[in-house]
Amino acid sequence: MKQYLKHHEWHIIEEGLDPHTNKISESVFSIGNGRMGQRANFEEEYTGETLRGSYVAGVYYPDKTRVGWWKNGYPEYFAKVLNAPNWIGIHISVDNQKLDLAKCKVEDFKRVLDMQVGLLSRSFAATLPDGKKLRVESKRFCSLARGEVGAIRYSITPLNFSAKATLSIFVDADVVNKDSNYDEKFWEEVYKEGSEGQAIVTAQTKKTFFHVTTGMRYTILSDGKKVNLERINILQREKFAGNILQVELLEGKEVVVYKYAAVLSSENHPKDQLVSQCTKVLNEAVSAGFDALFEEHAKVWTHKWEECDITIEGDVAAQQGIRFNIFQLTQTYTGEDERLNIGPKGFTGEKYGGSTYWDTEAYCIPFYLGTAEQNVARNLLVYRYKHLDKAIENGKKLGFKDGAAFYPFVTMNGEECHNEWEITFEEIHRTSAMAYAIRDYIDYTGDKAYLTEFGLEVLIGISRFWAQRVNWSSDKNKYVILGVTGPNEYENNVNNNWYTNYLGVWTLKFTIQAIEYVKQADAKRFGEITTKTRFNEKDETAKWKEIVSKMYFPADEKRKVLLQQDGFLDKELMAVSELKREDRPINQKWSWDRILRSCFIKQADVLQGIYLFEDDFDLETIRKNFDFYEPMTVHESSLSPCVHAILASKLGYKERAYEFYLRTARLDLDDYNNDTEDGCHITSMAGTWMSVIKGFGGMRVRDGKLCFNPFIPEKWKSYSFRLEFRNRVIKLKVTKDKCETHLEHGDPLEIMLKDEVVQLK
Amino acid sequence: MKQYLKHHEWHIIEEGLDPHTNKISESVFSIGNGRMGQRANFEEEYTGETLRGSYVAGVYYPDKTRVGWWKNGYPEYFAKVLNAPNWIGIHISVDNQKLDLAKCKVEDFKRVLDMQVGLLSRSFAATLPDGKKLRVESKRFCSLARGEVGAIRYSITPLNFSAKATLSIFVDADVVNKDSNYDEKFWEEVYKEGSEGQAIVTAQTKKTFFHVTTGMRYTILSDGKKVNLERINILQREKFAGNILQVELLEGKEVVVYKYAAVLSSENHPKDQLVSQCTKVLNEAVSAGFDALFEEHAKVWTHKWEECDITIEGDVAAQQGIRFNIFQLTQTYTGEDERLNIGPKGFTGEKYGGSTYWDTEAYCIPFYLGTAEQNVARNLLVYRYKHLDKAIENGKKLGFKDGAAFYPFVTMNGEECHNEWEITFEEIHRTSAMAYAIRDYIDYTGDKAYLTEFGLEVLIGISRFWAQRVNWSSDKNKYVILGVTGPNEYENNVNNNWYTNYLGVWTLKFTIQAIEYVKQADAKRFGEITTKTRFNEKDETAKWKEIVSKMYFPADEKRKVLLQQDGFLDKELMAVSELKREDRPINQKWSWDRILRSCFIKQADVLQGIYLFEDDFDLETIRKNFDFYEPMTVHESSLSPCVHAILASKLGYKERAYEFYLRTARLDLDDYNNDTEDGCHITSMAGTWMSVIKGFGGMRVRDGKLCFNPFIPEKWKSYSFRLEFRNRVIKLKVTKDKCETHLEHGDPLEIMLKDEVVQLK
Repeated sequence: MKQYLKHHEWHIIEEGLDPHTNKISESVFSIGNGRMGQRANFEEEYTGETLRGSYVAGVYYPDKTRVGWWKNGYPEYFAKVLNAPNWIGIHISVDNQKLDLAKCKVEDFKRVLDMQVGLLSRSFAATLPDGKKLRVESKRFCSLARGEVGAIRYSITPLNFSAKATLSIFVDADVVNKDSNYDEKFWEEVYKEGSEGQAIVTAQTKKTFFHVTTGMRYTILSDGKKVNLERINILQREKFAGNILQVELLEGKEVVVYKYAAVLSSENHPKDQLVSQCTKVLNEAVSAGFDALFEEHAKVWTHKWEECDITIEGDVAAQQGIRFNIFQLTQTYTGEDERLNIGPKGFTGEKYGGSTYWDTEAYCIPFYLGTAEQNVARNLLVYRYKHLDKAIENGKKLGFKDGAAFYPFVTMNGEECHNEWEITFEEIHRTSAMAYAIRDYIDYTGDKAYLTEFGLEVLIGISRFWAQRVNWSSDKNKYVILGVTGPNEYENNVNNNWYTNYLGVWTLKFTIQAIEYVKQADAKRFGEITTKTRFNEKDETAKWKEIVSKMYFPADEKRKVLLQQDGFLDKELMAVSELKREDRPINQKWSWDRILRSCFIKQADVLQGIYLFEDDFDLETIRKNFDFYEPMTVHESSLSPCVHAILASKLGYKERAYEFYLRTARLDLDDYNNDTEDGCHITSMAGTWMSVIKGFGGMRVRDGKLCFNPFIPEKWKSYSFRLEFRNRVIKLKVTKDKCETHLEHGDPLEIMLKDEVVQLK
Repeated sequence: MKQYLKHHEWHIIEEGLDPHTNKISESVFSIGNGRMGQRANFEEEYTGETLRGSYVAGVYYPDKTRVGWWKNGYPEYFAKVLNAPNWIGIHISVDNQKLDLAKCKVEDFKRVLDMQVGLLSRSFAATLPDGKKLRVESKRFCSLARGEVGAIRYSITPLNFSAKATLSIFVDADVVNKDSNYDEKFWEEVYKEGSEGQAIVTAQTKKTFFHVTTGMRYTILSDGKKVNLERINILQREKFAGNILQVELLEGKEVVVYKYAAVLSSENHPKDQLVSQCTKVLNEAVSAGFDALFEEHAKVWTHKWEECDITIEGDVAAQQGIRFNIFQLTQTYTGEDERLNIGPKGFTGEKYGGSTYWDTEAYCIPFYLGTAEQNVARNLLVYRYKHLDKAIENGKKLGFKDGAAFYPFVTMNGEECHNEWEITFEEIHRTSAMAYAIRDYIDYTGDKAYLTEFGLEVLIGISRFWAQRVNWSSDKNKYVILGVTGPNEYENNVNNNWYTNYLGVWTLKFTIQAIEYVKQADAKRFGEITTKTRFNEKDETAKWKEIVSKMYFPADEKRKVLLQQDGFLDKELMAVSELKREDRPINQKWSWDRILRSCFIKQADVLQGIYLFEDDFDLETIRKNFDFYEPMTVHESSLSPCVHAILASKLGYKERAYEFYLRTARLDLDDYNNDTEDGCHITSMAGTWMSVIKGFGGMRVRDGKLCFNPFIPEKWKSYSFRLEFRNRVIKLKVTKDKCETHLEHGDPLEIMLKDEVVQLK
């Protein structure tokens, strides 16, 4: 845990350059626009510790799997997020001394991320080895208005000298991934050009042959006038193009470099038009100019914040935290492109490779449902629909048949990437996260037609998986599910994980309901689906119903709790509070077997199920389970606290709920798990949002009706949020003594507020 | 499965060179002498598929661990068997054409391993690209009489030409391991010299700094006279030294190269004396000459066979099989050096790296007890005694304390090498294999004093491990052992594996008995042990007794079988015979999760326990368990059939016993598992021996008395074996209608034969 960032309602502020925290800041201050993203690396050279990261959405490299002990069924490749060509580079030297903050005396270093307008600023004064001192101010953004444009304003002011400075301004595709199994470079050069004031490089990924064209133009001004540039040389080398030039620096006089970048990928343009399109995008950006580009970008942010801001009065740290979470989520995924998804690190790091985990369905969909147009969440569902064939293929590889869909644990293009048997093969609950997301979406939007168009096919595939994955225990005279890993990954290869069994059975029931709906709503379409999926409705649903009625669920009758899995009560049950300080976090201190046989829980498991299917349980059952499991939970997953915050809120454990909220809201800002340098925990940020909306706000949708049951944490004066809901925008403001609701947009609506009907107009 | 080797009672014979089976033959035809070993690679160059392997006992390299997903507690290194400097090389070219069997026409190729005298012979006629044809005959052996000497007789006869041949005769330490995590070479040069007729290279391993000095001398004769050598040049390059020279070849006239090699390691000599000692060994070898060296070597083999041969009449394949197993075991480990052990591949390949698994204790000890002097098995026990501190250290790394000894799963020097959590951390039964071996040794030899000298300290350490590893289940009101992998590795992270629980409890009981014995036999020594181990006899044994009395053992009351683990009966129980042909072997056809949740068993698990503790169970229990588990067993471990052969014999399932025997006896000769090219299954060969002695012969030791209950497989006319037993040699010969016993050596002895007392004189 580190707390070096200043608290501010809208800004993230770092003062002073500390080489030890630089990589953390590079993650936290990342900017993106859904199409591209950029860690907060320096424009100038930096020989200190840094993790360079430029990212282009949808572009990946299938790195050959490297494991110690191969298991049959492992995928051959792990699709990885790519560090893409560098478009930010502006290298400076004066009298053969490089401006390199690792080697200069640095004063007044300040890095600010203005979340309100999506602008990263940095300023400092640096003293070169010979005593020359200069001040630099840089601003940059990835345009939310033009998804392929990034812009930099980089100003240099010599403070105690006049001299010629050499500037190298370039595009560099000769970059490496930190995460590379065989230490190879993933990019090859396809094309490059360099001319005065401009450079373009097209690089392609090996194996996948994605083309990314990165172009840049620059202008250099002083006093608002173009500076006379001397000795402009075109730089070209392997995968690299740029200009090197000299600029006359006069003491006290600011020189400003405006660098405009265009980043285009073959995901969005024909390969043979990438260069011409890039030139066009650059032309337009340059002719608009930095200020106009920024203005239109800021305007989009303003609009976004109108949709999704949460305000908190009386607690700046909490206000900053929630906004940071919303900011990162918004710039990671805009919902415009159904081929994209939300990587666990977004555009802030390479770690965890593949872009899509069940995090999307379990944590992110509610966020996008509540903060964006319905189409955004729908696109996330369609993404999985488009991967259905590959999920069926994935099932086949593991011995399933007849159209059983087993969605991958980690994926880029629908194929499984992951290679830990206890997760890849056994954490099977994730395949039903796709089913749950469909329900979540329909409950929230009322868009049942989604079932007809896409949903039912997916549900049939997943239900087939469960029907094959269960087996009959003649010992128990019940169906059982053996050899699984539940959401609590601190248990592996267990039998009858309650969450998994429950989710499996729920999926079968939901699919049967969906079949009934589609049959009635659109018999023709149902016929098409039946034919396409070779669905034998009678036999298959009969089997499903049989499983539903005879599934085994482990429970402890004595304690009246649902049992995480068979054998859980054989453990030595103890509370996390009994653990010694030096034993925590257990995932860093204990060997794996010790973790596995302990009772300690990484993240909500039974409670995850209770959270998802809350209405199936009475309050007493929820309380008993919460009281039983939470004390054994170490919350060593970033996805854990939010679920607990929501349940604690429901149970009236207000202080606990607030503690859980804090733990998730400032996870990256305070580097809670000492791993933010690898990137931010993007998907769990959606959990933070849920902690407020579903936790403190008590938001639920019941029978199509929006319900709130809010309370306010003691420390806060007020909080407010907006929700998109069925073509309306509802605003809720909670203060110590009241709760105001307001319909900001759309037709009148009846909602429930603390069990009372409220008419919104 | 491949059956290209000819059947013969004493020889392994390959006729014709097939590039596809060459690596298999390289394994099968390996020779060794306990100190060094050599795969049956060619002396001349060979550009076809080959796995080069020269091995020096006790010399290893700790290769940095490479895993996909690091788990806390994994060792940082995996100690690997090393491909050591090549001492066999004799390269030949005629008119710039290399003799390379991958590029010549090869006729009359024959490879013969004469197991009776430990001699590898090879002969062929090769036609060079220009039509020149020559005949080669090579013979080589690793001297059992001089552990550091290898010798080669390599004869060349030009069949249709006379010309000058260029010979390169050398020592080469510039070799690679196939099994290298980071593709690095493990050897560095320390010293080299080359002179006319001689070369010496000292190489050292990186990190471990073992020195190995490899020297060679040669003489070249024709008609028994030294050949006049022309243009002898000294060859020297990095890690390489030798001679290159010309020899006049005359049509039809044989030229013979005698190459003498000395391989010395710093394990046996001071580093600064390695070169001088090597010279001395070479001098002595050369002055003895090939024939005399061979004679003394063959004499040792004759003596070895007198000790350990098993004859089988009426079944050449079975005869060859059992002799091959005995031959390999004998040349892998001679028992003279207590620092050494029996690697799973012996001197026949690199695979599985580290030299020592629980195979040694569970399978090999009985073989060496029965076929060698008592000291040989004792040295294997002492080996583990010397690793006790490291086993305690290993326990500490995994959270155990106060002297709990957790022996590694794979080791070279006592440290754990392995890195699969489900095995490394969870296959904990192996630590008690060390305890069981002590009992086995004492039962067989009567040498109870071993407890006093070494055994008790080991037992206390292991018992402490179990006392900490169990936990109290308040649900079951019993002690339980959670999260283990039993001998059946097709189950991972299970609770209450019956074998593990039983072995753990047995260890505690045995340790308590051992304490009683040592206290009475040597109170002073007991005091020393107590002090050294900080043993609190009263409290610790009280705890152990409590665990013994309250341990939980899973069982199925209905079927009257012991249960492999909790939850086993939830599986879909089916017989292996119901599996489709294309599903087998399941470890190549099924994904890991499918294997885990199936009922199929890799190797004896409950039955392994029944085999080890046979007298604890009545025949009916044994039968019920065998009949329940064996049909579900796929025997995909080479260690499985032998245990089943022994139990089937006991149960009177004679045909099944014979089937199991065949499966183990010719495993490598017939490449049963398609993996012999990596090396032979050395440790399971001891299981083959046990199948005959304990299976067909029904040998047991009860209360210090040797008992036999033999039967003869239907196909055999007779079989006979000798046993070393308490300073006696007993011979047993079984024919269709009788069983003869004979005391070949030692004092009179009373034995039991089919429940009758027999006096041997």
